[in-house]
Amino acid sequence: SGLVHIKNPHLDSMEEDVLYHLDLGTKTHNLPAMFGDIKFVCVGGSPNRMRAFAQFMHKELGLTGNREDLADICAGTDRYAMYRAGPVLSISHGMGIPSISIMLHELIKLLHHAKCRDVTIIRIGTSGGLGIEAGSVVITDTAVDSSFKPRFEQVVLDDVVVRSTELDKDLAQELLACSKEIPDFPTLIGHTMCTYDFYEGQGRLDGALCSFSSEKKLEYLKRAYDAGVRNIEMESTAFAALCRLCGLKGESSC
Amino acid sequence: SGLVHIKNPHLDSMEEDVLYHLDLGTKTHNLPAMFGDIKFVCVGGSPNRMRAFAQFMHKELGLTGNREDLADICAGTDRYAMYRAGPVLSISHGMGIPSISIMLHELIKLLHHAKCRDVTIIRIGTSGGLGIEAGSVVITDTAVDSSFKPRFEQVVLDDVVVRSTELDKDLAQELLACSKEIPDFPTLIGHTMCTYDFYEGQGRLDGALCSFSSEKKLEYLKRAYDAGVRNIEMESTAFAALCRLCGLKGESSC
Repeated sequence: SGLVHIKNPHLDSMEEDVLYHLDLGTKTHNLPAMFGDIKFVCVGGSPNRMRAFAQFMHKELGLTGNREDLADICAGTDRYAMYRAGPVLSISHGMGIPSISIMLHELIKLLHHAKCRDVTIIRIGTSGGLGIEAGSVVITDTAVDSSFKPRFEQVVLDDVVVRSTELDKDLAQELLACSKEIPDFPTLIGHTMCTYDFYEGQGRLDGALCSFSSEKKLEYLKRAYDAGVRNIEMESTAFAALCRLCGLKGESSC
Repeated sequence: SGLVHIKNPHLDSMEEDVLYHLDLGTKTHNLPAMFGDIKFVCVGGSPNRMRAFAQFMHKELGLTGNREDLADICAGTDRYAMYRAGPVLSISHGMGIPSISIMLHELIKLLHHAKCRDVTIIRIGTSGGLGIEAGSVVITDTAVDSSFKPRFEQVVLDDVVVRSTELDKDLAQELLACSKEIPDFPTLIGHTMCTYDFYEGQGRLDGALCSFSSEKKLEYLKRAYDAGVRNIEMESTAFAALCRLCGLKGESSC
């Protein structure tokens, strides 16, 4: 059907669904009217960048109206920012797995309530490259954890559930083909490593704490490269797992 | 000496330290002049609330100048927001352990570079209460994970290091004493449970995914209560672990 899959039997019996962190809800907003025609959702960490991206899409799509005036749909909260340009929704998710997870739960319910069909979701955040030219875009085939395993460990109450982190391979190829139409736009497909920490977790030597040597750092990063990792960031495993489970065609290109 | 402890032997040999996510640095800013007299740091998730808190402190401390004009010290980035009111610094940290960890690494280095002494840091975020009156403030004695254990598992490269999450017990008593001076201000000391997820991790029935029954949720929350947990949030274990390791007197009152 192309609809988003909600895997929550409790939701149907709820009289109202409040998307707390988006400042939207099924009783306060007409979600099908507001979002029913959305076909693409782009997400990234920074609210300012996601505003700039929506303005860029507004221009590229030749939409009417002043793109400087695009309003933040979630203006009632400062947890996330959301803009739309035609069929494209642009949303910030903050930094790290917990932050993107809250946003994705509420976004997925939004797309469900709005009865959106055939939605593609792309993460367009920043990441650190590994053994590749600076400025390259890495399209993720599989997100891996800090042990280079293609899995996301989700704690459900106090149980650990392991979820797959494979992304949409056809979409990855489509994005790669798009990149080839633009000159000097280094783009590749590879694994993306997702960590819970920016400093100690990614081998940085300049955090407040650092217990490893430069050699140990390089040895770890080399092992990551040998395992197919081409970039490192902090959201992709949760993003991939949630997209897969809810039937959203998802990609990460950072 | 009252100074902040940096446990990173690499830092001394660095010519410049850039605090990327705060848009500050040792070469671009005179950190001792800007921050050397800071005695209190208050942190919370939302940038707007941390601005409102700085304005409140500005008024309470009887400072001169218009408190509506307080400038965001990190205005060059939208990752975090930072305001100061006299000796009090007020900083946002976003949602979740990865987000607060990035901020704390850079804040701790900031306090180190600025040669601050005897700094007290208090998290004043939001949390969900457990078996207590709505609106209560919970002062955390110990932060616990989703298994109710007083520990924070930090991944360092691909090793897991277990860290203690005890907070400053004297400071907890001081804060409790303060609360008693204010009428109708329900405040208690208890354990705070810190999760990586808001929906599946905290037993919510209204996420995009939910695989447990209402009974299973209540059974889990009851076990948490019996283990001493009085509120649930998403940052306290990392906050407690980093404060302890760096010699910062820290408390969480949410």
